[in-house]
Amino acid sequence: MSLIGVFGGMGPSATVDFMDKLVQLTPASRDQEHLPVVVANFPHIPDRSRAILGQGSDPLPQLLKGITFLNEAGVGVIAIPCNSSHHWYEQMSRASAAHVLHIARSCVAALQEGSERVAIFATRGTLVSGFYQRELRARGIDFLAHDVQALQASVDDCIREVKAGKASAGGASLDRALRRAREHGATAVIMGCTELPIAARHATSHGLRLVDSSLELARATVNYALERGWNRPGWEV
Amino acid sequence: MSLIGVFGGMGPSATVDFMDKLVQLTPASRDQEHLPVVVANFPHIPDRSRAILGQGSDPLPQLLKGITFLNEAGVGVIAIPCNSSHHWYEQMSRASAAHVLHIARSCVAALQEGSERVAIFATRGTLVSGFYQRELRARGIDFLAHDVQALQASVDDCIREVKAGKASAGGASLDRALRRAREHGATAVIMGCTELPIAARHATSHGLRLVDSSLELARATVNYALERGWNRPGWEV
Repeated sequence: MSLIGVFGGMGPSATVDFMDKLVQLTPASRDQEHLPVVVANFPHIPDRSRAILGQGSDPLPQLLKGITFLNEAGVGVIAIPCNSSHHWYEQMSRASAAHVLHIARSCVAALQEGSERVAIFATRGTLVSGFYQRELRARGIDFLAHDVQALQASVDDCIREVKAGKASAGGASLDRALRRAREHGATAVIMGCTELPIAARHATSHGLRLVDSSLELARATVNYALERGWNRPGWEV
Repeated sequence: MSLIGVFGGMGPSATVDFMDKLVQLTPASRDQEHLPVVVANFPHIPDRSRAILGQGSDPLPQLLKGITFLNEAGVGVIAIPCNSSHHWYEQMSRASAAHVLHIARSCVAALQEGSERVAIFATRGTLVSGFYQRELRARGIDFLAHDVQALQASVDDCIREVKAGKASAGGASLDRALRRAREHGATAVIMGCTELPIAARHATSHGLRLVDSSLELARATVNYALERGWNRPGWEV
């Protein structure tokens, strides 16, 4: 099937940002040259990071319902613009007939092998899950230890503020985290939570290269669809 | 069912803008307080305005496929952030078990009865279809005749530019149309095409009250869902 599936709502603003990136990355001069997309924006799924930390209810049953929903809608590929949910990537992927793209693999592929020292900005759950560290190790890319407590507190603040609709407050928190990462010797930062790029519009980079996991997943999604000609005019619902 | 359905892709940027408005209008401090939404972003539907003008193929079969798709996905209400497609509102509404909101009715409800002289900025198809004029007449609101040719040429330019991803060029075109509407005695402008609010970020209002059809449809959608408690935590996919 020639349809992109987006499993969103985690969070809702990040999903809007991801959809905007899909549209911006698609070369098109009129509606009919764009890509067909079905978005399942299901914000009520229990907090992923808290569950990984053993503090909240298990989101896996609802994650699998979302995957099933998109497969029943006939999508040919699934993108999930939520990093923490990738803790359950294998289970979601196994339950899906449609290929599920992996946000961290797309993101780490955008880094220069061997030449960068990376800070991973993500939820505590994503960091404990360890999938970014695994991807970076596999590519031989150096990264900062994640237990830089003051830095993580600012990242937590930023994510919570964006989820509450306070993007400019989130920008100030992100700014503090970036300054701290720079002081710890980072040359690049993975924005490994899809709320962070929204805050980044209100922050300065402090000379760090910012790698946006949402943008890299959007690139992978658009490439997947364009390679298969899903923007062709003869497409039918 | 406690799901909002958005029939989008007409155009894709306007759909992103509409989704952003849904998120912004929902009072929420965390993901789980937001509203569940399914978006069918089907950009390949034939040009609605051209079809109304007798210049292109009939979009109705694909419009009905979109409505059926969302009903099969289990949505409880449908919003269509494309004004021109409302030429076929009756047919879509009859084919849908879920209530279909009407963008022009939501938009005209935001105007002050009797106190405003309104310019309708829309595609030529929407103007020929006449549903905005009917809604305004029913509410006793005065509006400009729509065949102000130089004004319409600027509106056409604006819509085409936004659909091609050139929002700031669209802003300059919208600016020309707003100045002309002011010269013709308008006190308010209905942005009766969902591309126009995107251009409006790059234009000045020239003292006119701008009524955004996309924002008014988003308000109606969020109110519909909140009144029914679709943001309640116990919601299940």
